[in-house]
Amino acid sequence: MLPTVACIHRGLFPSCAGLSVRMTSRGIGQKGILANRVAVVTGSTDGLIGFRGRLARDGAHVVVSSRKQQNVDRAVAALQGEGLSVVGTVCRVGKAEDRERLVATVVEHCGGLDFLVCSAGVNPLVGSTLGASEQVWDKILEVNVKAPALMLSQLLPHMEKRGGAVILVSSISAYVPHVELGPYNISKTALLGLTRTLSLELAPKGIRVNCLVPGVIKTDFSKVVRTGNEVFWNNFKEDHKVQRIGQPEDCAGLVSFLCSPDASYITGENIAVAGFSSRL
Amino acid sequence: MLPTVACIHRGLFPSCAGLSVRMTSRGIGQKGILANRVAVVTGSTDGLIGFRGRLARDGAHVVVSSRKQQNVDRAVAALQGEGLSVVGTVCRVGKAEDRERLVATVVEHCGGLDFLVCSAGVNPLVGSTLGASEQVWDKILEVNVKAPALMLSQLLPHMEKRGGAVILVSSISAYVPHVELGPYNISKTALLGLTRTLSLELAPKGIRVNCLVPGVIKTDFSKVVRTGNEVFWNNFKEDHKVQRIGQPEDCAGLVSFLCSPDASYITGENIAVAGFSSRL
Amino acid sequence: MLPTVACIHRGLFPSCAGLSVRMTSRGIGQKGILANRVAVVTGSTDGLIGFRGRLARDGAHVVVSSRKQQNVDRAVAALQGEGLSVVGTVCRVGKAEDRERLVATVVEHCGGLDFLVCSAGVNPLVGSTLGASEQVWDKILEVNVKAPALMLSQLLPHMEKRGGAVILVSSISAYVPHVELGPYNISKTALLGLTRTLSLELAPKGIRVNCLVPGVIKTDFSKVVRTGNEVFWNNFKEDHKVQRIGQPEDCAGLVSFLCSPDASYITGENIAVAGFSSRL
Amino acid sequence: MLPTVACIHRGLFPSCAGLSVRMTSRGIGQKGILANRVAVVTGSTDGLIGFRGRLARDGAHVVVSSRKQQNVDRAVAALQGEGLSVVGTVCRVGKAEDRERLVATVVEHCGGLDFLVCSAGVNPLVGSTLGASEQVWDKILEVNVKAPALMLSQLLPHMEKRGGAVILVSSISAYVPHVELGPYNISKTALLGLTRTLSLELAPKGIRVNCLVPGVIKTDFSKVVRTGNEVFWNNFKEDHKVQRIGQPEDCAGLVSFLCSPDASYITGENIAVAGFSSRL
Repeated sequence: MLPTVACIHRGLFPSCAGLSVRMTSRGIGQKGILANRVAVVTGSTDGLIGFRGRLARDGAHVVVSSRKQQNVDRAVAALQGEGLSVVGTVCRVGKAEDRERLVATVVEHCGGLDFLVCSAGVNPLVGSTLGASEQVWDKILEVNVKAPALMLSQLLPHMEKRGGAVILVSSISAYVPHVELGPYNISKTALLGLTRTLSLELAPKGIRVNCLVPGVIKTDFSKVVRTGNEVFWNNFKEDHKVQRIGQPEDCAGLVSFLCSPDASYITGENIAVAGFSSRL
Repeated sequence: MLPTVACIHRGLFPSCAGLSVRMTSRGIGQKGILANRVAVVTGSTDGLIGFRGRLARDGAHVVVSSRKQQNVDRAVAALQGEGLSVVGTVCRVGKAEDRERLVATVVEHCGGLDFLVCSAGVNPLVGSTLGASEQVWDKILEVNVKAPALMLSQLLPHMEKRGGAVILVSSISAYVPHVELGPYNISKTALLGLTRTLSLELAPKGIRVNCLVPGVIKTDFSKVVRTGNEVFWNNFKEDHKVQRIGQPEDCAGLVSFLCSPDASYITGENIAVAGFSSRL
Repeated sequence: MLPTVACIHRGLFPSCAGLSVRMTSRGIGQKGILANRVAVVTGSTDGLIGFRGRLARDGAHVVVSSRKQQNVDRAVAALQGEGLSVVGTVCRVGKAEDRERLVATVVEHCGGLDFLVCSAGVNPLVGSTLGASEQVWDKILEVNVKAPALMLSQLLPHMEKRGGAVILVSSISAYVPHVELGPYNISKTALLGLTRTLSLELAPKGIRVNCLVPGVIKTDFSKVVRTGNEVFWNNFKEDHKVQRIGQPEDCAGLVSFLCSPDASYITGENIAVAGFSSRL
Repeated sequence: MLPTVACIHRGLFPSCAGLSVRMTSRGIGQKGILANRVAVVTGSTDGLIGFRGRLARDGAHVVVSSRKQQNVDRAVAALQGEGLSVVGTVCRVGKAEDRERLVATVVEHCGGLDFLVCSAGVNPLVGSTLGASEQVWDKILEVNVKAPALMLSQLLPHMEKRGGAVILVSSISAYVPHVELGPYNISKTALLGLTRTLSLELAPKGIRVNCLVPGVIKTDFSKVVRTGNEVFWNNFKEDHKVQRIGQPEDCAGLVSFLCSPDASYITGENIAVAGFSSRL
């Protein structure tokens, strides 16, 4: 493990006895609805979903993680450039040892955790369900389903007694399956169930678990789907009366809300940010 | 009619004959995420759901309505006491002429409308579905289902081109029916459908429609259910791992979010504020 | 009134004044999975949904009803032509006195009832939700929502202790709303809730309640939708991979199953017969 | 390979080395709604769910498979004792080579396949989600989610052009999660999504895909849950007004229906056989 100071990128999360986390010297994290709370955001460094920035601007200390060091570095640099409180660590969420390292970072530098946002995921364009190899299934189920559960298991001891929240990230394809995304659809449906079960399991501990269900959001992933199939996207918009493509900020708004005290009686819910809804 | 701009931007509800209350003298309503926007909240004067206060504290000018003058007066007085911008008018939502009066109030004093929160409703304790008389059915369907749709029809011309939002109020009994609330359950299920259909109809106009689905909230209504059946409430909590009864503020938090720009890509959704969720 | 046992076990619909048709003289209705059971089917005489024929061919004595005498007569004649056991009566389901007459027919001629299939409904093409007048709402909610509940209330005393079943008929537009069918969509969503609530209410009496959710079925109603909007129908088929239009027999198959002993542990369910499904 | 026609139309499963059982000598399988069709039922040999017997009595040639030779032998013996047409083969559904062997059996002895019923599954009593090890997750996701998809992929070439049906087996715990069954709940929710996605993928091939959602059925599995927690079962019955425990025959009735022509316009549906329903 790297020295603390290096790890936290110039001491933004100085360790200190008696307090799990401190403000930075630049007064960040002292206002906003999530002031002085700690959030881990996985898979956030692709620069697209944008949760990390929002949570940090709401006052949280944010631990970002991604598969690649350069992505972590870029994300941390961007947020630091805004004067936000952030630390980064590489984490391939499917790897037990990487998850351990993430936990260690959180414990060492923040003393605990309030919010876990699991947005790490695989490229959805995996083709049909019946064409998928065992390897494709294993990868998708590992990263999209098992990893959030295992990550939370490992982080949970450090979340207790803080009244925190967990946010999983499913997809509208859990409800409106796209045939080119076969196993991906199914992993995202599994997350709806994971949200429900975790919410029951964690309610007695005061931890809420909800699920963001993004529609077609302007990301690299959706770009592949959209450009590969313009007819699909046009029909999709017409069928569901979707007026525009979603922006990463649209997702970030819901995540911020679900972490906030305003959502303290909301748990087990799967909420679409999609410009439409497809279920009762 | 006063100039719209003045009304909106100064946060003033000028005095007018026939209105039970007046503008506040303080410059409330000029900050907050809903600053200078106009919200109509029906059925809000029982002092319990508490949407009106939240929306006003978020900066909106709030038009409250209730069946009884004294309830309107009390609600207005309470909000004015906080220095909030509020106006009130009596409105039995099932009556066309009352709805017309509400529309006139909105137009005259605010020049338009951004948010409509339909929380007027009948006492749910109507007994079994098969024991319900035609009169019971008519009352429940009129107030709970038709009235929100008709109210919105009448207000819509004054909402267009403002990018507003509509919030209907269903109930967790739409998903987890309680046998003593027969026709009420069904009216609340109908609202889930009304939300979906209205969301499609209004998307091209830039108006979002979502639905608050309250669980057991500490109100006079739920008191009747809870005290009448303590075993029910205890089982309910145990089954769904509900940790506490909901507070009106819990509902208000979601309503505020759904009106805010953070929710601008969320429409057609039914969201439970219930301490649990019962569906995928 | 004839002795119940005779009526039930001999499969007789004795002649009676005021009924448009009579029992058949052949020993129909004594075999098949519904042998010697009694089914009321409302709204069945448009010749399209075709439940009545199927239930009769499965052995049930069928009481058909429709708004118009000539439709009743035609339906009865057709079924009698097949040698099936059928009786008919005019019934506008929204009228209390008509429902009373239907009940009297059932009691007098069959001594009781096992199955109630509520397929009476209004023309769905009522336009947008926000364009609907109070009259449109009243009509739709009366016929589609209230009438099935009130009809069942009146028939229930004659269904008890027979282990029967109730089938409501919703529509895929309850799940996938069509903007031109506004209030109709909502009435059909309400039926999903009516199914759930009734199932709980009637479980202790051994009566199951389920709901048929037809997709686009080849009827006069759907013809209007389809021919009025060929683009819609083509997109609908493509989006949901629907391979063909549904036939009345497709619906009849599910109704027959839901009445049969094979479905004796299924209650409260809403089942789509649509060539696709739109929900989890 | 034997002539397909002979196999299908004579209802014969000719003897073959390596198969634990043989054709019946009687002309079974030539009547009934599934006459002369071929069904594979996995995991059926625990003697409890009872699909195989029903499908065979409906006229189908049934290929049963189970993890253990003795279970296969017992199942085959029981069905042959009834004079039904059955063949058995050992198959651990999570093993590619076992699936290959099952495919070979089907091809060699039946020349093709009409129905696949995937009821193989792991013991649900795996404890909490957050307590589950990676091994538990891997096992559950492999057997409950991946295996049905991979099995179908391998069998599909032999199902085409026959207009068949696939039935997956989820669980009511997909909708009403039980905290002691954590990862199991989630795997069963995933199956709801697998049903939806497969139904879209296979619709153009004329193959329907639906899902049986059993409630508490009298099996060895449920016995563990029920006896371990009598309070749970009593509350469950009271909450959902469930009047009795389900029987394997209740599930078999739905499976038979879903394979039959009566269900030919039903696909993508998840249907509960639970004595109640928990969703809209």
